[in-house]
Amino acid sequence: MLNEFKDIIDPKMLPSRRKYLYYYIVGLVDSEGCFSISIKKQDGTKFGWVIDPVFQVTQSREHAAVLEILKRVFNCGRIIPKPGQEASTLQYIVDARRNLAEKIIPFFKKYKPIIKWREFQYFADIVEGLEKGEHRNLEGFRRLLEKAYKVSPERKYKLSEILSELEGRVDASETIRRAP
Amino acid sequence: MLNEFKDIIDPKMLPSRRKYLYYYIVGLVDSEGCFSISIKKQDGTKFGWVIDPVFQVTQSREHAAVLEILKRVFNCGRIIPKPGQEASTLQYIVDARRNLAEKIIPFFKKYKPIIKWREFQYFADIVEGLEKGEHRNLEGFRRLLEKAYKVSPERKYKLSEILSELEGRVDASETIRRAP
Repeated sequence: MLNEFKDIIDPKMLPSRRKYLYYYIVGLVDSEGCFSISIKKQDGTKFGWVIDPVFQVTQSREHAAVLEILKRVFNCGRIIPKPGQEASTLQYIVDARRNLAEKIIPFFKKYKPIIKWREFQYFADIVEGLEKGEHRNLEGFRRLLEKAYKVSPERKYKLSEILSELEGRVDASETIRRAP
Repeated sequence: MLNEFKDIIDPKMLPSRRKYLYYYIVGLVDSEGCFSISIKKQDGTKFGWVIDPVFQVTQSREHAAVLEILKRVFNCGRIIPKPGQEASTLQYIVDARRNLAEKIIPFFKKYKPIIKWREFQYFADIVEGLEKGEHRNLEGFRRLLEKAYKVSPERKYKLSEILSELEGRVDASETIRRAP
């Protein structure tokens, strides 16, 4: 029995081994988890936009135990009230890139989501690209952006808007650099 | 590798053993499954109402493979377009009571849902009560109805409406029986 979780839940309610619990988690995440890449306007950053990967799992407050188990298994992240549904719903969130790269992604490479496999692969690619610093040059930043839009095209800003803004920015900075 | 599913999905996408797949299924069902008891008005039945247990899992058409896997693992049920969302969504449905009693319930007694544990227990109690024929007498029927309302109180008809209709029915039939 997984007594290590006994402060969270009666161990009789859990699978009898860690490995079984991991597969339970894959099934749960495959339906209620989300590997999302948000694209945010942010002044003061190199390109005026940031690429922000977040792993999250949503659950009603009544079943907070499940999120506590995730937090302990992944040994990172936090549980917060879901914005807009604070009274009823919680979210387990991992947004620190180091934790995504070192804990979340290796887990789901080993224990593969079925439904969210494509979404997860793009997520992993983008996080790994960010870890390598590919977003620090325009070409790499554009490639990561395009990847984010490919897996999830419906967003607040159109890709074309962001790309043309980026071009404008680079032209401006080159003009400055070339100025005598 | 679980080659027995290779006509449905690349076995590399699946857990490597049946037992692991079972825990994946528990996780999936714990979020997207539903152990529901519907109460329907139905003329020509003993009490004018039927207690109808259904196990179902909903999924987008794009990921129909997951429902096909469930159907094969449980070796029963059917996959249909979800009423009202036919174009995008499918449902795996088991409503034959024998299959619920002999396949679905024993599975989830062994591989326990965490989030849906309470819902599942009521479901199992009611299905087992129906299997024993408890619904054939008024007292048993009322007990099963009350159980269904206890786990899921928000329904089209109020429990009190149904109960008073049942009383009326029984009074009427007793009057008939007592008539000379």
